[in-house]
Amino acid sequence: MADPIIIGTVALDSLETPFGKVQNILGGSASYASLAASFFSKPGILSIVGKDFPCEHIKFLNGRGINTEGIVLGEKTFRWQGFYEFDMNEAKTLRTELNALESYKVNVPENYKNAKYVFLANIDPELQLAAIKQIKNPELVVMDTMNFWIEHKKKQLLEAIDKSDVIVLNDAEARQLFNTPNLVKAANAALKLHSKSVIIKKGEHGALLFTDKKHFSAPGYPLENIKDPTGCGDCFGGAFIGYLAKTRDLSEANMRKAIIYGSIIASYNAEDFGTKRLQKISHEDIEKRYKEFKDIREF
Amino acid sequence: MADPIIIGTVALDSLETPFGKVQNILGGSASYASLAASFFSKPGILSIVGKDFPCEHIKFLNGRGINTEGIVLGEKTFRWQGFYEFDMNEAKTLRTELNALESYKVNVPENYKNAKYVFLANIDPELQLAAIKQIKNPELVVMDTMNFWIEHKKKQLLEAIDKSDVIVLNDAEARQLFNTPNLVKAANAALKLHSKSVIIKKGEHGALLFTDKKHFSAPGYPLENIKDPTGCGDCFGGAFIGYLAKTRDLSEANMRKAIIYGSIIASYNAEDFGTKRLQKISHEDIEKRYKEFKDIREF
Repeated sequence: MADPIIIGTVALDSLETPFGKVQNILGGSASYASLAASFFSKPGILSIVGKDFPCEHIKFLNGRGINTEGIVLGEKTFRWQGFYEFDMNEAKTLRTELNALESYKVNVPENYKNAKYVFLANIDPELQLAAIKQIKNPELVVMDTMNFWIEHKKKQLLEAIDKSDVIVLNDAEARQLFNTPNLVKAANAALKLHSKSVIIKKGEHGALLFTDKKHFSAPGYPLENIKDPTGCGDCFGGAFIGYLAKTRDLSEANMRKAIIYGSIIASYNAEDFGTKRLQKISHEDIEKRYKEFKDIREF
Repeated sequence: MADPIIIGTVALDSLETPFGKVQNILGGSASYASLAASFFSKPGILSIVGKDFPCEHIKFLNGRGINTEGIVLGEKTFRWQGFYEFDMNEAKTLRTELNALESYKVNVPENYKNAKYVFLANIDPELQLAAIKQIKNPELVVMDTMNFWIEHKKKQLLEAIDKSDVIVLNDAEARQLFNTPNLVKAANAALKLHSKSVIIKKGEHGALLFTDKKHFSAPGYPLENIKDPTGCGDCFGGAFIGYLAKTRDLSEANMRKAIIYGSIIASYNAEDFGTKRLQKISHEDIEKRYKEFKDIREF
């Protein structure tokens, strides 16, 4: 049985950073998140691709132990084209072709329905809601989103938040969604909704976890060479839920560890284009960086 | 004997934040830094004020065990007028009157000359250099600066850096001075100069310490109510050197502790206007927050 289940996009990305240019590579929130989760567990993807989607990507995902039977086939694959400027902080979109995503109807395979861990990766909140309705009795639902949905489907987004246990946002989205520059205030506003925990991703500055009474601050990993930050946020969420699905421990203390694993996978992901770097790292690499994370915050 | 010695500005500030407005209150880098240092040691200030400077402020500083014999008297006190917008991240300057600062000639009192710890707080780098020349045999020189000096006196600034053991910069200044968006690259460039250590202050995101082989990431304290961030950076540097002067241990491990104490005093400072909050906190408050800092980074 696949667990965690990850709904999100599977895309063909074309992008340019100050360090190079790639065309039509495997991208999308579900691809990055499932790849990250696959270091810890056996994820299953819910998504749609088109007839133009290269079979090798499916084979690659399957080779990582990722179940793809929840990827349905439409006409044309979702495509994103963008670039990063000098500071690499923000992806600038040149072109988005939703293609098959526009007609995607979520249909959760039987084999996914008893999963206990669900990650609603960045995708239309209506699709996130459709997925969560079809999974029988999840123990933990984690959701991510992006500014586009805050601007265009806030009502549905708040509904998806209401069905989730953990919300993952980046700092700009948290400030935008809760209309405050102060991240502590934003997190407290989020905790007043249904969510038990709020995670705020801050890129190079690390990540914050807010629960009812506790606060955790994960450091950023000191990366000198960032080649392509695409998918880092998705990797973070995917590794986070993958680690929780493996350890089956939802204590706040274990969530802290899951956040560190999320940060580790995200930090490796930025070191090369697309999924290239994650294809090469081993469990030893992950544990080595885990120790480094321990060391950089010791006092 | 006063130790550490802190050169910087002593000012009368008028400022407005979304939470209120104050006029002609005690401000300046040396005031904030020495006040912060006074929680740990007996600092001495090098600065200039004018005849208009209220005697009560000198009495207040002396009451905190701060030596003010290095504050000389000029015509008119340095004045800064500014405001903070909604996000409180950046001070916007409305008016700067250098006044007596323009003719300030540094003359280090005998009583300061054998000090072992020196903090070159934010002030004209020529004045920082003049101060350091007159102190006989310091064990540790820490320097801070601001964007204005990077833009207008870069040569003298680099000379001051060359005479310092630890540079303290905020993230924007580090990126500006070393012409890179990447803080790790900026820190490595700084380490190629004379400095043994570089500290990058990141406001709400905490602070980073880079030494030759090691990296430390101090978390930001989750402040929900920031009333006035003026002087937080100066408090950070002042508490940092004050703690080192008290403990006389320049190991990297102890510098990490000093950074946490710097972060604690800075976090309290932001909770009220001017020096109001720091006038009220006790050593118990500091130790309480130190424990919180330990807890928020534990995994």
